[in-house]
Amino acid sequence: MVYKSPIADFKYNLDMLGYNSFAESIDQFKDFDTETVISVVEQVAKFNEQEMVDSNKKADREGIVYIKDGKEGPEVKTPDYFKPLYQSVIESGYIGASNPTEYGGGGAPFAMGILNGEIGIASNMAFYMGPGLSQGAIKAILKKGNKELKDKYLPKMISGEWMGTMCLTEPQCGTDLGLIRSTATPEEDYYKLNGQKIWISFGEHDLTENIIHLVLARLPDAPEGIKGISLFLVPKRLDDNSRNPIFCGGLEHKLGIISSPTCVMNMDDARGWMIGEPNKGMEAMFLMMNDARLKVGLQGVAMSEIAYQNALDFAKNRRQMRSVVKDKQESDAKADNIIVHPDVRRMLMNVKSTTEAMRSLCIYTSMKIDLAEHHPDDSVRETAEDFAAIMTPIIKSYCSEKGFLNCSDSLQVLGGSGFTKEYPLEQYMRDVRIALIYEGTNGIQALDLVGRKLTMHKGRLLQNFQKEVQQFINENKDNENISTFIKALEAAVKEVMVSTMWLMQNGMQDPENALSSASDYLNLVALTSLTYMWARMAKFSDGKNEPQHKTKIKTGTYFIDKFIPELQMYSKKVQSGKSTLMEMEVEEF
Amino acid sequence: MVYKSPIADFKYNLDMLGYNSFAESIDQFKDFDTETVISVVEQVAKFNEQEMVDSNKKADREGIVYIKDGKEGPEVKTPDYFKPLYQSVIESGYIGASNPTEYGGGGAPFAMGILNGEIGIASNMAFYMGPGLSQGAIKAILKKGNKELKDKYLPKMISGEWMGTMCLTEPQCGTDLGLIRSTATPEEDYYKLNGQKIWISFGEHDLTENIIHLVLARLPDAPEGIKGISLFLVPKRLDDNSRNPIFCGGLEHKLGIISSPTCVMNMDDARGWMIGEPNKGMEAMFLMMNDARLKVGLQGVAMSEIAYQNALDFAKNRRQMRSVVKDKQESDAKADNIIVHPDVRRMLMNVKSTTEAMRSLCIYTSMKIDLAEHHPDDSVRETAEDFAAIMTPIIKSYCSEKGFLNCSDSLQVLGGSGFTKEYPLEQYMRDVRIALIYEGTNGIQALDLVGRKLTMHKGRLLQNFQKEVQQFINENKDNENISTFIKALEAAVKEVMVSTMWLMQNGMQDPENALSSASDYLNLVALTSLTYMWARMAKFSDGKNEPQHKTKIKTGTYFIDKFIPELQMYSKKVQSGKSTLMEMEVEEF
Repeated sequence: MVYKSPIADFKYNLDMLGYNSFAESIDQFKDFDTETVISVVEQVAKFNEQEMVDSNKKADREGIVYIKDGKEGPEVKTPDYFKPLYQSVIESGYIGASNPTEYGGGGAPFAMGILNGEIGIASNMAFYMGPGLSQGAIKAILKKGNKELKDKYLPKMISGEWMGTMCLTEPQCGTDLGLIRSTATPEEDYYKLNGQKIWISFGEHDLTENIIHLVLARLPDAPEGIKGISLFLVPKRLDDNSRNPIFCGGLEHKLGIISSPTCVMNMDDARGWMIGEPNKGMEAMFLMMNDARLKVGLQGVAMSEIAYQNALDFAKNRRQMRSVVKDKQESDAKADNIIVHPDVRRMLMNVKSTTEAMRSLCIYTSMKIDLAEHHPDDSVRETAEDFAAIMTPIIKSYCSEKGFLNCSDSLQVLGGSGFTKEYPLEQYMRDVRIALIYEGTNGIQALDLVGRKLTMHKGRLLQNFQKEVQQFINENKDNENISTFIKALEAAVKEVMVSTMWLMQNGMQDPENALSSASDYLNLVALTSLTYMWARMAKFSDGKNEPQHKTKIKTGTYFIDKFIPELQMYSKKVQSGKSTLMEMEVEEF
Repeated sequence: MVYKSPIADFKYNLDMLGYNSFAESIDQFKDFDTETVISVVEQVAKFNEQEMVDSNKKADREGIVYIKDGKEGPEVKTPDYFKPLYQSVIESGYIGASNPTEYGGGGAPFAMGILNGEIGIASNMAFYMGPGLSQGAIKAILKKGNKELKDKYLPKMISGEWMGTMCLTEPQCGTDLGLIRSTATPEEDYYKLNGQKIWISFGEHDLTENIIHLVLARLPDAPEGIKGISLFLVPKRLDDNSRNPIFCGGLEHKLGIISSPTCVMNMDDARGWMIGEPNKGMEAMFLMMNDARLKVGLQGVAMSEIAYQNALDFAKNRRQMRSVVKDKQESDAKADNIIVHPDVRRMLMNVKSTTEAMRSLCIYTSMKIDLAEHHPDDSVRETAEDFAAIMTPIIKSYCSEKGFLNCSDSLQVLGGSGFTKEYPLEQYMRDVRIALIYEGTNGIQALDLVGRKLTMHKGRLLQNFQKEVQQFINENKDNENISTFIKALEAAVKEVMVSTMWLMQNGMQDPENALSSASDYLNLVALTSLTYMWARMAKFSDGKNEPQHKTKIKTGTYFIDKFIPELQMYSKKVQSGKSTLMEMEVEEF
């Protein structure tokens, strides 16, 4: 296993995306200039590159143990070496970094959290799901909890002493949360919660003394469906340290992220406290959706990166066949390193050129999220919010799927070795596969994009995105050096316009047309966004002589040559709409 | 788990492809008309659908046990229920069906073997690798073995009493067999074999008393490289039943096909007999390549099919969200079956429409292989051989990759459930992943297509393919009912011509251009071949009123709408050639 955190590329991105002036524009981030951020990230990197990467494979084999008859009820045992690892994560400053100083956090921008996050995920995706989901719980409490709850829970969650979970899904509902049945009945100064939740990541474990569950449930008088759901805080342990009856009923056996316990959680008169207003639980949920979905996309980026590094390492060392070019043949060996072969390079460059653009898009979007939340200027906040809102489903969906495919392509570089458990590629592919599913399946993301984000504020979100891209095009039209990139971006924007127009016209008449084309449309806008990122990188690197910049131009040129042809394909697929999809009778399938 | 053999679609394909007149044109296949073939296949289907599908999941969990200190040396233990299953496979007539009656085979066309094969693979891919690879060994002995070897080994291999293996790979060489180091030293009436082979499927097991290994090795005076390799038959047990020292040194731990033992095989003065001529071992290997590679493509088809059936079953029963069309909402339920949702249908139809066309292409090509081998007319044999030769790398590569992606898409239909081991989708995806790698990686297939098959006989292979397709276009140009299909096929042929021309011109000047574009070119021709299959299906079903025919037209129309846009994409990718691929210095990756 090989992994080196891509710090140089992080720094490149911060410079390219104008991070320093971004940080200066927000009062509370003034101290977090590029240098500071990179030095924090380097600390996190060091620890993860060493211990965490090794633990990842080990834990995948050993898994998590469910103990039915624990002292106080069912228990979940993580591998022994997870405990000191978790302590190191706390000490590395990973958990609290981007949380408010008021509750003991580091006060850093979310954007810095994204850099740390990529390293953590790449090092051990399953393990970091615990701290990752805890951030979601923290955010919901921060935004919607009352002072008492905040004061009691946030400091210990932000320090990492306690972990948090999100309890949404029930057996009869994953996508369709309106079908939730768990109940919350008011008592004197708390609620009594009953029901079953499934697929709760880190729902039970032995890494922290207490676990703070955020649970969606219905009040007795709640209206049916999605408008009758409230959010509750249900701790594993109550103030007197007694066990609150929210117990793990079993673990799922899964394809990947095997060392992340996926729990069935049973509530049997468990005590809880409401977060936010009655029947407004979904609002609180959506508050943290942008962050959480962006981080799922980031899982695709992180796993692409580590898969790539391992494929590259193999390609540099494995010798098979001769280069087709005589001069490139190593005369003192019987075969050449496979990195000389065009088809091997093709696989590597497909991964590299997409990974780097996806990374840029994630970092850029995380800066927009910071702007949306903290910038003093209303209009800046609004535009940034628009950008983040439209990019969230795109990043979640496109980066997770491309991440999975990139892991598969990286595995392919190793040939038969990639299929064995001696190498980590097969695990990376298994682990990242979940990213296409959780936090809203990729299909749901496409519907969110086409059904909600496109129509919000009379189409303002997409218009703002197009305006930003168009402005970039206009500013750089005359730069001959990067004309390949600008032309590609122009073509991309055009395809988006044509497809959007088609969707508007045909989706209005017949919503099934829009829903049938949603996934292809998402991919089209995603590819346009990546093209935008490459165009910005090309502009930034143009005329600079350092090797990093020359490599960027080559990598970006490859991307344009090989991925721009996909734009028209997606656009045509969009415009074939529902085709015969809805004519098929169920028994014809 | 759900699986019903697609007998109706088999029958459809035989009729559509003119199977009966094909069978009549070859003397020895006269008795195997469609009805006979289907009744044999139904027998095989029955047994597999019942027991084999169940054993598949079970064996995936239990795996294979390596016993280092067996009675006579290291042993490999398969699950107990594999033995009676294997007996049932023998009794079902699966193994000998397509082998010559002279040695106890059924004398059926290879095409029938392909139908049986799809069922076997879908039911238990890992298990059927044993009988599958045995066919390769049988074929090599049939074609190149002397009378003594044939008489001694073929009857028991064809009856299934003994199994055979193919021992090619060594630690230093998978793709590059020229690097083989194993040696064969002549003794009185045998050869002494020494060396290590790896990744030998079913190299050791307890299903048959004897295992007949076909081993590539070097004679003492052999020239270096690929021209110094000979083929040897090395039985596990010698005539006196004593153990020949070819022992299993360990098993690989793999992502999938877990119940197929992947063995390290050590030869320590093992006795062997040469098959064919000295230093002509690779020729004997290539003889069975077409069959074996076609069967790997078939694995993609078979796994697509069973994955699809399981996804469909879930989609018909899982209720989430409401149909966007009021009339389609079931008023007596709180949510609708997810098969009403366009995006779920999209995933299902992507799988269905590609699987059916790939199946047709496999069956059609297997008929061409039969023609090439047995037809009395020289020119028919030649044309058929050309078709099979060019289609082999295409089927192997495209169908395996699409099969993997189809399994992943089918898993996606199940959402979170698909990621758990309660459902079989995750296993299907893991199992089929190897098909992109073995029997020559997909990258190697692309090089075979572009580097060998395109240039063979001055380009005759592709010309013959184009001629056949063009003739079909000409014959059906005026049929308004299927004009969508004919137009699509015309467009496809045009893209192939443009891309081929580009490859010829630019690959001649600079081979790295051709090698960089080989994979995209393969996909382009593959898609054209599938379009050809859909056009033939459309023609066959046009004007027929039975439900099966109406469904075919809908499914084919969907394919044309959604996959034809990929043609131009592949063509453009081909024409961007090596882009910046070869400019990248190794340290820039």
